[in-house]
Parts: sequence; structure tokens; C-alpha cells
Amino acid sequence: MSVSATYFPTEPTAPTVKTTEFPGEKSKVAIKSLGTVFDSRTAYFVADYEKSIGNYLVDVDGNTYLDVYAQIASIPLGYNNPALIEAAKSDKMIRAIVDRPAIGNFPGKDTEEIIAEILKIAPKGQDKVWSGLSGADANELAFKATFFWYQSKKRGYANPFSEEENVSVMKGQSPGSPDLAILSFERAFHGRLFASGTTTSSKPIHKLDLPSFNWPKAEYPSYKYPLDKHEAENKEEDKRCLEIVDKLFQTWKVPIAGLLVEPIQSEGGDNHGSKEFFQGLRDITLKYGALLIVDEVQTGVGATGKLWAHEHFELSPLPDIVTFSKKFQSAGYYFHDPEIVPNQPYRQFNTWCGDPARIILAGAIGHEVLKHDLPALAQKVGTYLFTKLEALQQKYPKYLQDLRGKNRATFIAWSLDDATARNKFLADMKTVGVNIGGCAENSVRLRPTLVFEEKHADLLVEAIEKVLSKY
Amino acid sequence: MSVSATYFPTEPTAPTVKTTEFPGEKSKVAIKSLGTVFDSRTAYFVADYEKSIGNYLVDVDGNTYLDVYAQIASIPLGYNNPALIEAAKSDKMIRAIVDRPAIGNFPGKDTEEIIAEILKIAPKGQDKVWSGLSGADANELAFKATFFWYQSKKRGYANPFSEEENVSVMKGQSPGSPDLAILSFERAFHGRLFASGTTTSSKPIHKLDLPSFNWPKAEYPSYKYPLDKHEAENKEEDKRCLEIVDKLFQTWKVPIAGLLVEPIQSEGGDNHGSKEFFQGLRDITLKYGALLIVDEVQTGVGATGKLWAHEHFELSPLPDIVTFSKKFQSAGYYFHDPEIVPNQPYRQFNTWCGDPARIILAGAIGHEVLKHDLPALAQKVGTYLFTKLEALQQKYPKYLQDLRGKNRATFIAWSLDDATARNKFLADMKTVGVNIGGCAENSVRLRPTLVFEEKHADLLVEAIEKVLSKY
Repeated sequence: MSVSATYFPTEPTAPTVKTTEFPGEKSKVAIKSLGTVFDSRTAYFVADYEKSIGNYLVDVDGNTYLDVYAQIASIPLGYNNPALIEAAKSDKMIRAIVDRPAIGNFPGKDTEEIIAEILKIAPKGQDKVWSGLSGADANELAFKATFFWYQSKKRGYANPFSEEENVSVMKGQSPGSPDLAILSFERAFHGRLFASGTTTSSKPIHKLDLPSFNWPKAEYPSYKYPLDKHEAENKEEDKRCLEIVDKLFQTWKVPIAGLLVEPIQSEGGDNHGSKEFFQGLRDITLKYGALLIVDEVQTGVGATGKLWAHEHFELSPLPDIVTFSKKFQSAGYYFHDPEIVPNQPYRQFNTWCGDPARIILAGAIGHEVLKHDLPALAQKVGTYLFTKLEALQQKYPKYLQDLRGKNRATFIAWSLDDATARNKFLADMKTVGVNIGGCAENSVRLRPTLVFEEKHADLLVEAIEKVLSKY
Repeated sequence: MSVSATYFPTEPTAPTVKTTEFPGEKSKVAIKSLGTVFDSRTAYFVADYEKSIGNYLVDVDGNTYLDVYAQIASIPLGYNNPALIEAAKSDKMIRAIVDRPAIGNFPGKDTEEIIAEILKIAPKGQDKVWSGLSGADANELAFKATFFWYQSKKRGYANPFSEEENVSVMKGQSPGSPDLAILSFERAFHGRLFASGTTTSSKPIHKLDLPSFNWPKAEYPSYKYPLDKHEAENKEEDKRCLEIVDKLFQTWKVPIAGLLVEPIQSEGGDNHGSKEFFQGLRDITLKYGALLIVDEVQTGVGATGKLWAHEHFELSPLPDIVTFSKKFQSAGYYFHDPEIVPNQPYRQFNTWCGDPARIILAGAIGHEVLKHDLPALAQKVGTYLFTKLEALQQKYPKYLQDLRGKNRATFIAWSLDDATARNKFLADMKTVGVNIGGCAENSVRLRPTLVFEEKHADLLVEAIEKVLSKY
């Protein structure tokens, strides 16, 4: 029996559309009412999670969407997955919710087991983890670890802080608060707090009016598609972008302690970087003594056909820090070098140090992902789907430009002419019962769950064709 | 029947001490083992949350501590509170855990109800809320709201961004990323991310080696105790500190968009500010067109005898933003001015916009707090306890210096000569079965739960006397 049938014997066999407008009437009323207590201007519709199941998201008007967006790429195993419901009902979970421990000071007797569970799904070679609460938080915690590490190298890992450092840090001045930078890329998305926001450059709306650190931005490759027909140009593009990174390390006015990069820039447009590009980045960070931080908030936990997307790049040495959130439901970073543990306690610290309830759920997710080898399933289904989309591209090239994500499982995207065309396509897909997301200004991104199978892919392709055939 | 007896019919009647060292043998082994997957250097002992109940925290060695620290001031209603267990077992909670919605895009049909529930415990006059995940996150989200508001005032709330802004923000440069500041205070604690960390100035260890924004710090009053014997001096102190704040607004090189302040500086030493001081701050923010952000992460939800500590200050107009976390288990900020809602959607936004599971728990906490009028209970018990501590102070003045928190319910603190004396006192309290916390270098802070009653206060005072009588 297929994985989705095992989990969801009553999953619908096709989407059902009940309304002609989206949001439907009941959703409209509910969104307006929600607006009295919450900023509901961004709501697409109001969901009925009780009725949603597997790959199908139901709204309050009774529309049953095949969901290839999965919230914002963040539902791992389908709606109301029975294995996760079991975890949610466990005594361990109830205690984690009710008696939320400050695990730095007062860990519980199950804290070790809970954390050990999420280490089982760690990227290859990473054997330590630090917990946070969101993707932005995970990245900022990783920046902290990076700056601690960088200054400890300079000062000597075992050496104490100087009196001058202890005094100046209280004024937010150097040397206690040093001028250091994290290098990131144009079109990157790493979160929306102040340091993570500094490293985000996908859209103005994400950060307009917010003060920013003065940190360098390099160019991320822009490839020509299909890749196999533009090998030489794309190789040149890698080289050009790597030279920019190298030059920034040489010339930036403050030291660059870490380089932060997504294996596939997601929010920024599903921009891919080649294995060679990433190997080049690894070399540059080694050359200049900076950490390589890979942001796997969106790419992690199986959707690219490997547990962690950077495993496609065969980096050596491995990335220093890998951040996670979204589909893992918990957030934080994996690492391996013992010197990334700060040289004194209470440096990487806060009241809760993550949320054990969410860590327990992440453990349950990891368990299912490994048990059913869901990255392999994503690879199989993704390859199947990509081939079908290539055929569709032949028929409708204008609406499936730069089809990308071959061999990256279900992590597939394409572009349309502009934002207007893309937004119309996303909206039209609802009329045929598909909830689908965009990225950048003019692209469509597929982010189904890990229990998305060939039968769902068939329905998706049918639905796309139904929409495009009317254009 | 008393509230604690109602919730916890089997709560112990006194602490039990089983070991002579703290951590005990079993805790030591467990801390070492935990160290293989987590930085356990900060662990005091390993707790057994299954056996903990009400005001008593049990460790794996069987020590049963009367807990007047309540994790890090973050357990609201005692361990294994039956009302919260009921909330944790509810279908609504299970769905929130398993089908975690991205509530900005795909709110569920119960999202409005869940959020409305936490508005019932909002500070007086605040009728809107935005959800986050931790105290640091809450404060940074408040900074974002403040900067959006400040620039929207300048630009005109309804006016679009200029092309120059849209271009410069992508480079992290002005005018899109403007130079703006949040004013905070010396000895303040507002979290440990980069912007929140900039506003934190309690101890070097919190932020050494981290880059900082260049934002102004004012002085928070340092009063002489007891307050009623030093009225004139303390009034002068208020005046002096207010003048510093006013001057910073006049002279700081970049505009100050908001003033961030704790009603009682907690981590920084339980430093109190008078009603007049806070009224003065309110006036200054009005004079210079900045928002007043009150950080109630530690003081909120009843422990000072009012639902929210700033309600003691009778501010008019009310604070613009009030942040919360810790005892509320969920995090975020309350506000009232509709123009603090950003002028466009997707400005205050992220994948999850908080965690509905934690918001549901906060709603259940709020429900119990209101139902049993727990701020009034804290006031009654605090007054009772303070009187007993004053008597103890007469007997042991050296160990109960600057006793503070009169009329602020159980939010009580005092100081010892230095860090050595204070740390010895905290450690000695474990030998008589009390888990108690410190603040600043040389102070002791009481942070019991909201179900801490006279009988618990008696036990606490007895335990303190048992320790001090041997000094």
C-alpha cells in the first residue's frame, strides 16, 4: 500500500470545488470577522483543519484543495497525520505543553531523549544541535554562534574576556560589541527580524523602514534553462559569482565571520546553485576563516530528495552550521565542531531554549521520514512529475518558462511573463481545486508534503492543463 | 478552599530534601549524559516533571523543592495544573500541534476564537495583539511595528514607498533602511537576539562578541530603600534620570522612534521606577513623537498584583505597545492605535505568525487568572510575605539589604553584599528545600507562581531563617 493510503485511508481521490469565487462567501465573512482581532489582510481563505486530510486542505466553504503549497512549505506529512496525532496525545507532549521547562537551567528527565531524537535526522556528519523557535530565530542563533566562534578564535578559545571588552560591550561599542559581518546573497530570504532581515534581500516589502546592519551581499547565480543546454554559460556564471564572493571577503570594511546561503533560494525565486558553486563557496570560507552556514529552513527534511538539500553538493569539509525550521515544526541549527559550542556557558542561552513540545513533534516527524524513506519517495514522485511538466512545457512554453528543479525531487518551479500572469495563474488554479504558491515576482513553486505521490502528481498536471488550455 | 488546594489536592505540605549535594548524584549523571546532545553546563539539576505538582518542583534524586523561581519566572499556575492539562488534551490543541497553520495566509476556523481569548487578558485599553514566539521575538516584533509606524507618520500613512526607498532597502541603505533607534536603559534586559540584544545591558555575558546597533541608553533610577524614608532623594533621582532621557532625544544623532522600558527591571536587579518616573517617560515620548513600548515579559500576567505591572503607573495616554511572554507561555505584543497596524499587508508577517498551540494555552492561563482573580491573590500573599521579610530584615540586615517590591505583590527582591554572598545564599536555600533565583550580581528575586499562598510564604520565610541563622 502507498504511504499516503497507509496514513490516510479516507483521503479524497480528487479535489472538490464548491464556490466560484476564492475566498468563498463563508471565508469572506470569517476573514472580515477575524480582522477584528488579527491582521487578516493576507488570508487566502479560512481553513477547516478538522476536515482537512493528507494532501487535501478543506476551507469553510467546503472547497477541498489538493494542496501543493502545504501552508508555507511547512506541513511535512499531510493534514491530520495519525502518527503525529499519536505524538500530540502522548503524556510526554502534554507535560511539555503544560510544564514548559527552561531546559538550560531545569532540563527534565526526558530532555536528553527528546533532543537525541532530532539528532537522528541530522545532516550527515552533524552531531550537535541548538534549539530555537522559528526560521529567523534559527538563523540569528546561528549568527550568534558564528560571532562567538570567530572572536574566540581571535582571542583564544580558553582565554577570558578583557576588562575593556566587558566595559565596552555594555555601551554597545567595540571591542566588546565588535564590527563583524555575515555575508549573504541578493534575492536571499533568511527571515524578518533585524539581523536575519539584514541578510534577506528578496522583496522590499519584507524590510522597508527597518534599520539594517551594513553587511555584504554577493550575487547568487542566475542560470539559463534547461541546464543541460547551457552548460558553458552556467559554468561562467558560477565563476563570476564566486569571484564576487571572494572579492567581498578581501575588500569588505569589517571582517566577515560567516557566509549564509540557501541550497536553493526559495522565496527569492527557486534559484538553484550548482554543486560546483557550493564547493567554491566552501573553499572561500576556508580560505578566509569564516563559517559556512547553510539555511535549510525551506529545503530541509526530504523535499529535495535527500534529507538535507546540501547533501547533493558533496561538500568537504561539511557545512559548519545547518539551520532548520518549517517542515520540521521545530527550529534551530545542527553543527559538529565542538568549538562552535561557546567557550563559556550562558552565551547561547535564553529562557526556554526552544520548545520541547515542538521538539517532540520534530522527533516524531523525523521518525516517520526515516521509517518510510520519504526523501526517496519525493525523488521518485518528483522525477515522475518533472517529466510530465516538461511535456506540458512543450505545449505551453509561455506559461512554463525556466522549468527548474530536475533531480531535486518535488522542489520544482517555473516562471511566467510577469507578476500579473503569475498571480492570475495561481488564482485560476483554485478554480480547479489546487492550492499552489508563488515565489519571487513571476514564479510558481511546488511545495507539496512528503506524502505526495504519483496519483496526486497526475491530478496536479491535469489541473494545470485545465487552466492553461483556456489561456 | 484555597486556590492551590482546589487545583492540587495532593500538593506536598513541605519540601523534602534527599541529598546533601545539589545537583544530587542522579542529577549529576543525567546532566553529564545530557551534555552529549545539549549544552548542559547551565543545568542546576534534572527535574522530574511527572512528579512535580503545584508549587513543588521534584528532581530525579527525589528532592522536592518549594519553587519560588518557577523555571525562569515562567510557570504561571503551578506544575501539572489540571486546567492546563485539560486544555492540552483538547481536540483544538491537538489540531494546533499537528496541523500548525500559517495563520497569516491560512487561518483556521478557530483562529479568531483563539486570539480573542488572549485579548480578554489584555492590558486596559489595549484591544489588538500580534503574536510571536519568545520575549526577544516579541520585543523585536514591537520594534518593527514602531519603525513602520514612525516612517509611516513621516511619509503619510496612506502614501506608497518611493522608488528610491524600494531600491535602497535591497542594499540595506537609507532611505529604505533608515537610521532609526530605540532608546533603552542601562541594566535593562530585553532578550538576546541582535536588535533586542542591543537594548539589553544587564551583563556582558549576554552579548559579548555580538555586533550591535548604535542606539542610546539612558539611566534607570537607583532608589534608596526603604522608599518611605528617602522620598526627597528618590524624587531627585527620578528627575535626574528623566533629564537624561530628554537630552538623549534632543541630541542623539539619529531619530529615536520608540522608548523601551521594563516596569521593574528584572534580570537587571529588580530595579523599580516610580509612578512619577513612568509618567515622565510617557510625557517625553509624546513630546518627541516616539512610541512608548513597555516590556512586560517578566512582569506581566498578575505577579505584581495587577494583570500588567504598568497599570500601577496610571499612564495617560496608555502605553502604545505592551510586550509579553514567559508566564503567558505565548509571546507577542498588545496595542490599540490602528496606525500601529502596518499600512500594507505582508510587512508584519512571517510563516507561522506565532504558535496557535501556545496561544491556546495562553488563553487557558488567562481564563484561570481572571476566574480566580490571581493578581489579587498575589497582592494579598505578597503583602503578607513582605511584612514577614521586613521582620526578618530587622534580625539579619546584612542579608536582606534594600528589600524591595512593597505593594508589588510577590515581585519581591533584596540584595546581599556581593555575588559570592548571594550565590552562597541561593545554594544554601537548596539544602532547606527551596528553589530560588537571583538577579543582577548580588540580588535575590522571588518569582513564585500565581498559586503561591500564605502557607507557602510561611515555609519560605522559615527556610530563609533556617539558612540565615547559621550565618
